[in-house]
Amino acid sequence: MDIIRTIREMRTWRKTAGTVAFVPTMGNLHEGHLALVREAKKRADSVAVSIFVNRLQFGQGEDFDRYPRTLQEDAAKLEGEGVSVLFAPDERELYPRVAQRYNIEPPHLQNELCGRFRPGHFRGVATVVAKLFNIVQPDFACFGKKDYQQLAVIKGLVEDLDFPVQIVPVDTGRAADGLALSSRNRYLSETERAQAPRLYRELQNISAELRGGNLAYAELEAAALRNLQQAGWTTDYVEIRRADTLETAHAGDKKLVVLAAARLGGTRLIDNIETDLD
Amino acid sequence: MDIIRTIREMRTWRKTAGTVAFVPTMGNLHEGHLALVREAKKRADSVAVSIFVNRLQFGQGEDFDRYPRTLQEDAAKLEGEGVSVLFAPDERELYPRVAQRYNIEPPHLQNELCGRFRPGHFRGVATVVAKLFNIVQPDFACFGKKDYQQLAVIKGLVEDLDFPVQIVPVDTGRAADGLALSSRNRYLSETERAQAPRLYRELQNISAELRGGNLAYAELEAAALRNLQQAGWTTDYVEIRRADTLETAHAGDKKLVVLAAARLGGTRLIDNIETDLD
Repeated sequence: MDIIRTIREMRTWRKTAGTVAFVPTMGNLHEGHLALVREAKKRADSVAVSIFVNRLQFGQGEDFDRYPRTLQEDAAKLEGEGVSVLFAPDERELYPRVAQRYNIEPPHLQNELCGRFRPGHFRGVATVVAKLFNIVQPDFACFGKKDYQQLAVIKGLVEDLDFPVQIVPVDTGRAADGLALSSRNRYLSETERAQAPRLYRELQNISAELRGGNLAYAELEAAALRNLQQAGWTTDYVEIRRADTLETAHAGDKKLVVLAAARLGGTRLIDNIETDLD
Repeated sequence: MDIIRTIREMRTWRKTAGTVAFVPTMGNLHEGHLALVREAKKRADSVAVSIFVNRLQFGQGEDFDRYPRTLQEDAAKLEGEGVSVLFAPDERELYPRVAQRYNIEPPHLQNELCGRFRPGHFRGVATVVAKLFNIVQPDFACFGKKDYQQLAVIKGLVEDLDFPVQIVPVDTGRAADGLALSSRNRYLSETERAQAPRLYRELQNISAELRGGNLAYAELEAAALRNLQQAGWTTDYVEIRRADTLETAHAGDKKLVVLAAARLGGTRLIDNIETDLD
């Protein structure tokens, strides 16, 4: 596996890489990421993984500085998966100027759900993904469903700006107790880790209610928020939305997704569950 | 020459086109465009030209509806220049939704110079150019210096978002009397056409003053505005700027550009002149 640090070398590599499947990450790789890599391997001649902690998508007071950076361990894991190239630029390589001047501006969805609590986050995500697509020029790019809203933003970006990339959504990896795999799980204390699976359980409960015919969206959302709060969580949102567009779900919608974000201590966790009523 | 109407066919064509030089236009082609095509021909195996009147870059009350559409004549001219492909999508091909959701947001430069008089114009330009770059995937793209601010926006877009495209600036084509070639010249009455070269003459005068050592920018700008107004023009701006960034010029700057926009009757003309004081 080559570890490449510069855009110029990536462009050279790309010329002879055949078809490329790409997995953009912020590093600190866990089984969830490796599932993306394995999906990528099925699709193309070469797999490229990027590791870049993207300052643009962190807000003030968020965990940019303490976000775990574990490049050596990450590289060893990727090597073991048969990845062709690890693209790991430093910050000045991707952002050589004081400020990024040209940005991808997503539609109002960027200010809903997680965007309501992380202003500018999805603009930063869309912008860095556009840059990485232009650098790696992949035929396929794999994104986890764990970051469901991010996946929706990337899909929209690709459709609206005609990026020649096919987006491959990959199911969320989970611990045995249901907790979605996330680099941020390592911030959890032992007690918090024991509590953490409740987020997914509340989503499963709502999903079961929906499939059982209970379509009182607002009440289902409110009950889950109450349950989480009573168990010591600080809740950002629990919402039932249309799976394709992430618009607010209306009576009669069949393809739904239930999304939640809540905090345990200083750690913000997100999760979601697709629910098909057809 | 192939005339291609769909993104899908362009992607198929691209696979066997070798290196590609691209000239995006809004059609109604004149000698200025053909100079871009000739420059493109020098650079790559294949030349692709697009013709698309981009609604996103027209403001309310602007000339989107009456913008000249002359596809047959344009195609004949391009055929004569040895162009490989003319990409001429209809509006629903590039904008299949009611609204474009994801846009390229340029920095504050988009609200200066022409942007002050055409809100949203450069966002629309940057967005459609990003789309066309993703569809055509050219190695080179040729843009005229006549639209100097547009060229600066495209250069910035490519740098900041890492598009794998080399931008080729091409000198402005001019009529014998100095008037910059433009599709909008056809809106001019005979009297207006006789008056029109004054815009470039005023720029030439400023450029000569600068080269002669007169660096009283504000006074030079004001005198040109006054001269144009006295000759019956409605002036938008005459400004001396740094050629590379289009920032306001300061004492000591050597690479300058003088830019102007003014209207004769209902027709808005723009022009500029690079002025190197080294």
